[in-house]
Amino acid sequence: MTHVSLTVPPRLLMGPGPITVDPRVLQAMSAQLVGQFDPFMTSTMNETMALYRQVFVTENEQTFLVDGTSRAGIEAALVSLITPGDRVLVPVFGRFGHLLVEIASRCGAEVHTIEVPWGEVFTPEAVETAIERIRPKLLAIVQGDTSTTMCQPLADIARIATEHGVLTYVDATASIGGNDFLTDSWGVDVVTAGLQKCLGGPSGSAPITIGPRAVEVISARKHVEAGLLDPSGSAETDEGPGTRIASNYLDLAQIMDYWGPRRLNHHTEATSMLYASRAAAQLLVDEGIDNAVARHRLHGTAMLEGLVGLGLSLFGDLSNKMTNVVAVHIPESLGAVGGDRVRTALLDDFGIEIGTSFGPLHGKVWRIGTMGYNARKDAVLTTLAALEQVLRAEGVGVTAGGGVGAAQEVYR
Amino acid sequence: MTHVSLTVPPRLLMGPGPITVDPRVLQAMSAQLVGQFDPFMTSTMNETMALYRQVFVTENEQTFLVDGTSRAGIEAALVSLITPGDRVLVPVFGRFGHLLVEIASRCGAEVHTIEVPWGEVFTPEAVETAIERIRPKLLAIVQGDTSTTMCQPLADIARIATEHGVLTYVDATASIGGNDFLTDSWGVDVVTAGLQKCLGGPSGSAPITIGPRAVEVISARKHVEAGLLDPSGSAETDEGPGTRIASNYLDLAQIMDYWGPRRLNHHTEATSMLYASRAAAQLLVDEGIDNAVARHRLHGTAMLEGLVGLGLSLFGDLSNKMTNVVAVHIPESLGAVGGDRVRTALLDDFGIEIGTSFGPLHGKVWRIGTMGYNARKDAVLTTLAALEQVLRAEGVGVTAGGGVGAAQEVYR
Repeated sequence: MTHVSLTVPPRLLMGPGPITVDPRVLQAMSAQLVGQFDPFMTSTMNETMALYRQVFVTENEQTFLVDGTSRAGIEAALVSLITPGDRVLVPVFGRFGHLLVEIASRCGAEVHTIEVPWGEVFTPEAVETAIERIRPKLLAIVQGDTSTTMCQPLADIARIATEHGVLTYVDATASIGGNDFLTDSWGVDVVTAGLQKCLGGPSGSAPITIGPRAVEVISARKHVEAGLLDPSGSAETDEGPGTRIASNYLDLAQIMDYWGPRRLNHHTEATSMLYASRAAAQLLVDEGIDNAVARHRLHGTAMLEGLVGLGLSLFGDLSNKMTNVVAVHIPESLGAVGGDRVRTALLDDFGIEIGTSFGPLHGKVWRIGTMGYNARKDAVLTTLAALEQVLRAEGVGVTAGGGVGAAQEVYR
Repeated sequence: MTHVSLTVPPRLLMGPGPITVDPRVLQAMSAQLVGQFDPFMTSTMNETMALYRQVFVTENEQTFLVDGTSRAGIEAALVSLITPGDRVLVPVFGRFGHLLVEIASRCGAEVHTIEVPWGEVFTPEAVETAIERIRPKLLAIVQGDTSTTMCQPLADIARIATEHGVLTYVDATASIGGNDFLTDSWGVDVVTAGLQKCLGGPSGSAPITIGPRAVEVISARKHVEAGLLDPSGSAETDEGPGTRIASNYLDLAQIMDYWGPRRLNHHTEATSMLYASRAAAQLLVDEGIDNAVARHRLHGTAMLEGLVGLGLSLFGDLSNKMTNVVAVHIPESLGAVGGDRVRTALLDDFGIEIGTSFGPLHGKVWRIGTMGYNARKDAVLTTLAALEQVLRAEGVGVTAGGGVGAAQEVYR
């Protein structure tokens, strides 16, 4: 039965994510299951909560996993915070801002947006003006948007929102672990993430942290599932007066009761993904969050300088770029079609994946990541060496050795 | 860094699920990732679709995975089929029927229920009468409800629903692979499942199949995500006239476009869970679905006869019991507290988990599963041998060797 096992082609995933998983995380996933309420299971859940408090740099008790991809975490946050009719402000600076608009709007929010061109970020003043004009209940914003490679500074914005009594939600999927994120010191109410970027794990689990103000909003909407109520009709339901949350699966009030001391049955925890999430966080905590951010900065800089050294030009406001991904203009001589040929040649001949782009950048830039397990010197140098060969074969004028040489300068 | 790896205690999971994962499925999960649109990825997705068509015994093109636990699959089906105000009929015969009520109600449905006492199933006539009275758009029903161990016969009910122009949705999470399920021949429109029962995988992926009538309903509600639209405003959106689906993450119209030839970006597929789902289905298809059902029937019968042989009494209508789980009365001398002591002793001293119960059966029965990888002779006999010892130590009168002996009779 050899065909049950997969013969996966060797790939070095240097796109905007998902990226190559740290082998130690893969190994953790091969551990056998225990029962849902086994003491080992609940202690592993508690350990995982504690580890993610370190990842999010928070004291929030309510720090756990949503069982789904990072998008499930986003929707869990928004559907649990937003009551239909609530005003929500979304500053949009890339594709994932549009996603927040989309999800908030499906949650019944009255969504207001402000926008900057792709490749820029917002000033705190722009956000403050919008908050004063719109008076939203919630500010929802992305930290690092891989579609543009921009990293939105959040410290001032979160402070301003709090001063105006506005809740803040941040999607840190693509940035956390590779860019500073200080949940408590910035005063962000809810943050969600994913494993498949700087955390070096596979997609499929969404770490989340929820601060006290948001817990209050969500708990007020708590409704216990019909089939779980004690048939004696005891009053132990602890239900809130708020509007019931429109989703059951993504109902954070129920999920808090599942991860909390009540251990009230909700979904059946995806144990293998729990193991992966725990391992990814443990690796990050062992390294030290600050060290991990510095590592992403180092290898991101090496990649960036290497691309410049090849003679390519970079996209966007580099002073606000994420550490872990860079967008580089496809040489004009290639055009969009030639750009895809380069990506195909890298994949087919070198086993290296780099990213294409969405929306206004489609066919105009490649996106190259250096994140998680692949924020490594050998991954950077190999990618630059292969890219040089592929560009030369396509007739693009490149400096021989210029990419690897410039990156080596950064490492020296 | 030895603490990154987990030291999982050895457990034989003989409860109502999740159960011990087939080691070949665990191994599949340790394979490395490829990119989201890598040819290997898309071909693995297509292979997985084909395998689940065999599991669901269907020709439905739209057969794929929802990225979340089985509950995510249920909610994806209901939120995508139900437009607020739709009438939905849920025949409730256990906890998971209540869950369908709960989710359908959060989707804005006008939910109508019929109920039978826990331990019974519905006659086709009872469902037909309700359909004629309520005239629902959708009939939503569980096949195997582990809370009662009952397996609802569905062939007649699905035929009746179709004759009345009613869509049918079935939650087959706990039953599929261990009990017959004939999607096309019964005419069921949408079916969802999970890996953690008879499929021998971990929780975290929800296989789904969607027939043509349901595809039409769902496609009419298609809306393309804002950030994905071509900035040139080309008309290629293919959007439907129906009410937009309230969830983005669980929007089956979008998920169909992600798994289909358009490969339109939605979530980032949880690749490790895809590998697990593929392996679990491959193992089942290799064995043959009918053989797998027969295996579950054999070991389920051996467990049942073994429990009787120990002098215990069974719960529910045995002629409609699921093959893969049995509920047995906790001896009166033990009571609910003694019942929990037995479960703890089995876990602590023998590493064997059996299940407790919910709702009206709480403290009254244990639920013992024989499913997936654990539908095996050694698992059955070991469980019966250990249970005999624990019951004896608790002072319960049991027939020495009666459990294993009766099970061995079944195997002979």
